[in-house]
Amino acid sequence: MVKYPTGSVMPLRAAQRQGKKALLKKASFSDRGMTLEQQINESNQYYLDAGIAVVHKKPTPIQIVKVDYPKRSRAVIREAYFRQASTTDYNGVYQGYYLDFEAKETRNKTSFPLKNFHEHQILHLEQCLDQEGICFALIGFMTLERYFVTPASFLIQAWQNWKAAGKSSMTLAEIEANSFEIKSGFCPALPYLEAVDRIIADRKQEHGNK
Amino acid sequence: MVKYPTGSVMPLRAAQRQGKKALLKKASFSDRGMTLEQQINESNQYYLDAGIAVVHKKPTPIQIVKVDYPKRSRAVIREAYFRQASTTDYNGVYQGYYLDFEAKETRNKTSFPLKNFHEHQILHLEQCLDQEGICFALIGFMTLERYFVTPASFLIQAWQNWKAAGKSSMTLAEIEANSFEIKSGFCPALPYLEAVDRIIADRKQEHGNK
Repeated sequence: MVKYPTGSVMPLRAAQRQGKKALLKKASFSDRGMTLEQQINESNQYYLDAGIAVVHKKPTPIQIVKVDYPKRSRAVIREAYFRQASTTDYNGVYQGYYLDFEAKETRNKTSFPLKNFHEHQILHLEQCLDQEGICFALIGFMTLERYFVTPASFLIQAWQNWKAAGKSSMTLAEIEANSFEIKSGFCPALPYLEAVDRIIADRKQEHGNK
Repeated sequence: MVKYPTGSVMPLRAAQRQGKKALLKKASFSDRGMTLEQQINESNQYYLDAGIAVVHKKPTPIQIVKVDYPKRSRAVIREAYFRQASTTDYNGVYQGYYLDFEAKETRNKTSFPLKNFHEHQILHLEQCLDQEGICFALIGFMTLERYFVTPASFLIQAWQNWKAAGKSSMTLAEIEANSFEIKSGFCPALPYLEAVDRIIADRKQEHGNK
């Protein structure tokens, strides 16, 4: 059991409130003040409705300790704890390909700190890559409104570099050079499958086929 | 928000207790008195450790209403509710293939009632099948100690038959004729990937390739 970061629910609500304010203040209609997670969820719904792909966010894992069963009413969980997830947040299927990714946002402008990922997420991406999944991180530089699909192979390399040589972040330039940038839009909010198409094309070229 | 069946946690515990009793009473070392879910989780762990496949059970979706943040202690969820899942329980990746399945057990001996599935699970399996995923139900006749990997195509057909013609269950004979039976064992407890291999082989034969 891993201790969950304190205050995990409140910052999200605060972010949502900030998001609304940002929308009023600044006429940015592309990302519409949404968090990265909201943009991805909206995109997944679009892909699902259009029959393009089936990708869902996994529920937060919870350890349930005490449940009340009030008469004539639904069960109420009265004591439970957040658990560390053993996988990434998103997975699904697209044209026969298994997709697996983690989404992370930062307010930084020049680099992305690797400590935003957890060791088990990197391990999970490695395991899925070994099984020929399409694995990546979707990194949002929220202040810059720039979004990158960074293939897991590069992320794993950067992670190992951190552990071996102490380089604790990926610079924006490194991310630019090793990722597919996607532009935030309307439908879908984040067309990340365009980047997935390019990962698939690259892989086909490498292997001659799938 | 869908009302969660009352008493959902207690029956599981009762089943586990029964499982232990069954183990003591009867020297069945194959399924070792495990529930179907326990057998699948153990199999998934085996497949993961051996680098054969990456399949995880999705956490139960919970709507969190109230969280306490005690000082110097981890967050405690004080009010939360079970939510209806929008997908099946298990998915993952195996040799480049997307796997998606739902596990259901019954104490029946001659048929499997379709009401054990939820409409959204059938819909989700259809959506994943459209994306060329390997989709199935893992059905356990626990009293008979017989386990079947039933391809989603047949399950969907049976479901539609229920809705159109009122036939509310699949008979054991129908399941035998349209599934791959797997034998419960030690490592893994339920070698369901053997059935997946046969689904993949059938599909290759149908399509000439993948």
